[in-house]
Amino acid sequence: MFINATGFYVPEERVHNQHFLELNGLTSEWIEQRTGIRTRSKAKPEENINTMGLEAIKNALPDLPYDITEVDLIVAASYSPYDTVATAAHIAQHEFNIVNAKALYLSSACSSFVNALEVVEGYFAMGKATKALIISADKNSAYYNETDPKAGHLWGDAAAAFFISKERVTEHDAQIVEIFTQGLGHLGKGPEGVQLRPRDGGIMMPEGRDVFIQACTYMPKNVLYLLEKNGYTLDDLTYFIGHQANMRIMSNIAKQLNLPEEKFLHNIEELGNTGSVSSALVYAQNATGFKKGDVVCITVFGGGYSAGACLIKC
Amino acid sequence: MFINATGFYVPEERVHNQHFLELNGLTSEWIEQRTGIRTRSKAKPEENINTMGLEAIKNALPDLPYDITEVDLIVAASYSPYDTVATAAHIAQHEFNIVNAKALYLSSACSSFVNALEVVEGYFAMGKATKALIISADKNSAYYNETDPKAGHLWGDAAAAFFISKERVTEHDAQIVEIFTQGLGHLGKGPEGVQLRPRDGGIMMPEGRDVFIQACTYMPKNVLYLLEKNGYTLDDLTYFIGHQANMRIMSNIAKQLNLPEEKFLHNIEELGNTGSVSSALVYAQNATGFKKGDVVCITVFGGGYSAGACLIKC
Repeated sequence: MFINATGFYVPEERVHNQHFLELNGLTSEWIEQRTGIRTRSKAKPEENINTMGLEAIKNALPDLPYDITEVDLIVAASYSPYDTVATAAHIAQHEFNIVNAKALYLSSACSSFVNALEVVEGYFAMGKATKALIISADKNSAYYNETDPKAGHLWGDAAAAFFISKERVTEHDAQIVEIFTQGLGHLGKGPEGVQLRPRDGGIMMPEGRDVFIQACTYMPKNVLYLLEKNGYTLDDLTYFIGHQANMRIMSNIAKQLNLPEEKFLHNIEELGNTGSVSSALVYAQNATGFKKGDVVCITVFGGGYSAGACLIKC
Repeated sequence: MFINATGFYVPEERVHNQHFLELNGLTSEWIEQRTGIRTRSKAKPEENINTMGLEAIKNALPDLPYDITEVDLIVAASYSPYDTVATAAHIAQHEFNIVNAKALYLSSACSSFVNALEVVEGYFAMGKATKALIISADKNSAYYNETDPKAGHLWGDAAAAFFISKERVTEHDAQIVEIFTQGLGHLGKGPEGVQLRPRDGGIMMPEGRDVFIQACTYMPKNVLYLLEKNGYTLDDLTYFIGHQANMRIMSNIAKQLNLPEEKFLHNIEELGNTGSVSSALVYAQNATGFKKGDVVCITVFGGGYSAGACLIKC
């Protein structure tokens, strides 16, 4: 599998930490110390994951080495749907008149993007698709509770688009070496850790401490698993892209792996936790800077719980 | 691919047509003439797709020829999520302590169940799973607008569970011969036909007439495609299971294909349109009556638009 082009969309508005003092009693300094977040992106009321997905696709199109109508599989990955029937995949199919494509939407919380990669891998393995478009988008502001002192201050909005082919299309393509996902619903506080109930409270994170501990366990573990399985060591890793949930998780992992912090790519300080988009977005924002041969690992952890990782050779 | 066991859950409550006269001005006779629906199932307020999914799984367990903990892939298929983070797949993983499974939730509207079958097929093709659990569940009553004269009277609630293996497990297994899905978002009124916007109006069907026309086109077309591709004719078809959207669609298809109505299995008259569950539910409700060698075709059409079909040899 090869990445042919990527694009992204980040809404212009930035919400600063001081916005939350009156809402949930947290000071700017406390938020930054505990999360690393200084501002977060916020979509307009009339925007949603479907419109943001289209913007991300348009951003990718100048780099796409084939016509978008050649896409034969569209997967929308998100836990914050605008429309669960006319999904972001179907909207993109309509907007770009992609006539011969399968289309579906999926969620595995903050692991959705990596699960989408794996679903695409499955369609390629069956021979039922050869060129896929993954639309990764979350509008947390559609479902969050800003007054919630546990999680109201964390969330950002964003979208990313990845065009993926079964065979190499150009010499610039990055190769997806291996994808791994795992459901972790069986873990003690699994389904209670994070919730997004559209008709019953929106986004809540009642077990933030447990989420922190599990993320610090599974995110590095899955990077090591993929590196070792594919004959690499940590020294070979050029960039570590973790789910952007909390800078303290990243620091914890840096210490565990004894990795210099400059190997960690991140955007949480400016954009907040942009959900299942966050790691895809970090990749897309940095894609033009990757050099041939760079080894990049995306690793994610999400509610449910769920985890996944993806090893990429540029 | 083989179906090892199926189960289902239908809430006890039936809402009769006369319930709607005061709500949206439609008479019982009008509703029955136009849709074939006399009653529809309705879940309790405290039920949701996660709890209904668990009930359907429990219903299947007595027939499951292996321990549920051998499942290595759980796919929840639904367009009416209770929790998009702690999905029905993760809840089932937790409830039955299924330790080594991938887990995700997907939607392609009323085609979700068939898309889930295809995603499972992909995991089998990759060699990343061998025993899958599909949880098909929709609680339309969580999102519908009963006063809407266009669609308020259509919806029922239900769940089904399918255990699917890559290799045959017992001689009783039905074989899934082929699965086909297609995104149809590009069609004229595609994304406008049906909507479920959790934070913007719930379920609406602004283009019911167009949905009717497209369903009457794609549902029979995909049955014929799968039969012919696999060396069967319509005469070989034992049972036709269509998405339970409207009995008039079924009658239209029966005439188009010149098929006797007794080949059409249905439950819409009692349960209403149970969404993406409906065809899976009809299969599960009738599974014990299928004879060895029976040829069954499930065919679905949904919002987005989306379509799919699945050919099964019992």
